[in-house]
Amino acid sequence: MARRAGVSVATVSRVLNDAPGVRTDRRRAVRRAARELGFVPHAIARSLARGRTGTLGLIVADLTNPFYAETAKAIVDAARGRGYSVILCNTDNLPRLQAEQIEWLRRQRVDGLLLGSVHLRDPAVERLVNEGFPCVMFNRRLASGQGNWVVLDNVRGAEEATSHFLALGHRRIGFVAGPADFSTAAERLEGYRRALARAGAEPDPRLVRQGHFRSDLAYQAALDLLRADDRPTAILAGNDVTALAVLDAAADLGLRVPEDLALCGFDDTSLSRRREIALTTVAQQKDEMGRLAVGYLLEFIEDPERFRRHPVHHVLPPTLVIRRSCGALRVPMAEHSVRVLQGGAS
Amino acid sequence: MARRAGVSVATVSRVLNDAPGVRTDRRRAVRRAARELGFVPHAIARSLARGRTGTLGLIVADLTNPFYAETAKAIVDAARGRGYSVILCNTDNLPRLQAEQIEWLRRQRVDGLLLGSVHLRDPAVERLVNEGFPCVMFNRRLASGQGNWVVLDNVRGAEEATSHFLALGHRRIGFVAGPADFSTAAERLEGYRRALARAGAEPDPRLVRQGHFRSDLAYQAALDLLRADDRPTAILAGNDVTALAVLDAAADLGLRVPEDLALCGFDDTSLSRRREIALTTVAQQKDEMGRLAVGYLLEFIEDPERFRRHPVHHVLPPTLVIRRSCGALRVPMAEHSVRVLQGGAS
Repeated sequence: MARRAGVSVATVSRVLNDAPGVRTDRRRAVRRAARELGFVPHAIARSLARGRTGTLGLIVADLTNPFYAETAKAIVDAARGRGYSVILCNTDNLPRLQAEQIEWLRRQRVDGLLLGSVHLRDPAVERLVNEGFPCVMFNRRLASGQGNWVVLDNVRGAEEATSHFLALGHRRIGFVAGPADFSTAAERLEGYRRALARAGAEPDPRLVRQGHFRSDLAYQAALDLLRADDRPTAILAGNDVTALAVLDAAADLGLRVPEDLALCGFDDTSLSRRREIALTTVAQQKDEMGRLAVGYLLEFIEDPERFRRHPVHHVLPPTLVIRRSCGALRVPMAEHSVRVLQGGAS
Repeated sequence: MARRAGVSVATVSRVLNDAPGVRTDRRRAVRRAARELGFVPHAIARSLARGRTGTLGLIVADLTNPFYAETAKAIVDAARGRGYSVILCNTDNLPRLQAEQIEWLRRQRVDGLLLGSVHLRDPAVERLVNEGFPCVMFNRRLASGQGNWVVLDNVRGAEEATSHFLALGHRRIGFVAGPADFSTAAERLEGYRRALARAGAEPDPRLVRQGHFRSDLAYQAALDLLRADDRPTAILAGNDVTALAVLDAAADLGLRVPEDLALCGFDDTSLSRRREIALTTVAQQKDEMGRLAVGYLLEFIEDPERFRRHPVHHVLPPTLVIRRSCGALRVPMAEHSVRVLQGGAS
């Protein structure tokens, strides 16, 4: 190849290893010769020898939801710190698209997958798990509980938020839910119901509406809830995107938050921290979730048998972050462990 | 391999092409045999034959800034629609980290790079351009103008915003700038100065402060501006992140927006659209920018000579989006082309 490019062997080596100190014209000549001679680049040759590509696939539901942007950043940074690159895919929560992307990423020979867009029943993900392909779910998991995952204790988070409303004296507490086929949404609904049941409150099915974790649909659901004669005095939203839609609906009906309606979200995304919004919300440790998912996946890749036999089920604790929207800052604090933050520069 | 795995040749073929209809235990046996025999997976073998890997590198400054989350989503979706996967990196605007990531992505043999974190003088990017390596910059570009890029007409955007303030009667207009080594920040400052000069207004250097596009530093810069005896009556912020920090500083000093201070941002991220914030801002076409950058990069990969000889310089038009924060909605509209939006569910 050195002869073909008209340069020294040392120069060829420097160019192919991306080392500095080679003139641009020589660099080009070497690359052209390498292409013409069908030379196998080092990284690919090395990955063939190891049977690895050094890449991970990351599938998220929606990168424009700050929850996913923040976890994706944590994942990309953690993977890179361990020498892995991350191929990113976005599903918009479409199972067919997710199934295509999983196939696609496997054809790219990723060493493992980080799955943030799993449905409770999810044939594409179940197949990965059954085959023992290295993958770690985060945020959401399968109904069966199979496979490896890092999730929030969503039941407890929703229980704490609902109990907080009860402690503030609310009895008609509404819930704007997310899709019933996401574990996050199902578990948060379960936590809401448990807290009501424990308090001896009769759950009123008319107070639970489906908002699909989408601004437009959650806005409609909130309008329906708030237009009823016996409207709720407090609403727990299935996530922060939903809570912001409830804020819009309340404003359009002339209801003040928290004076006329107490409100709590879920996720603690950057929007909620803005003082103009000051949303009380159940916080997730998004950096920690991303870092843990990467750590487990890399261990899985090294030792698949161990992870098949003893899957990791890591449940992170929720924190109720009290801001203005729930109304607690105007009344004496109830007695349970909460973090009180009033927003500010984020 | 079929013999080693104890299955038929057809089964081996199905497993290696990721086709369905193979029992899990057989699938595992084939994969184990493939590993043991050092079988070269199809995708890698094909990429060797073409000298391509079918992957693009995407380098962004900060995925938690909604501007980058929105452009990254557009890029990932557009690339996938064209059969390419995207490896994502985040620089936090550190040039050393960007240089490392470029080297890293090239060792991964990406076919091309999408660069969203370029500095005005940027040796790592300049080297790529000089070598003719397929890459397209978006949002930011080099001082030299070299290479291929898709950017907003930042000068015109800042001119329009500043002229809007002048038309509303403001004479002391402040500017909280971004880093002087980003083309976006430098061009927006230039537009602000041009509008003032054209109006015959004497630019007061004390009205220009450096906020580094960071919440904490922009907040300090805004406090300094707003505590002065002859404080500005309007502020143009270098981007939306900066504008939100100015909002915080104004609130902490007891200044109402827009009554005591008119404010305009830059980017039109989802936060700005919230009715509680209702930020007047210069909008970017983020989806369009992402799609165009991918399109040009794929053409570059197919025909490098053409792009070296005739680089693409695509400048997108800005749109001034008028919301509550500039105060224009309280007074008769000035006569220039603007879009009037009042926020709402985003």
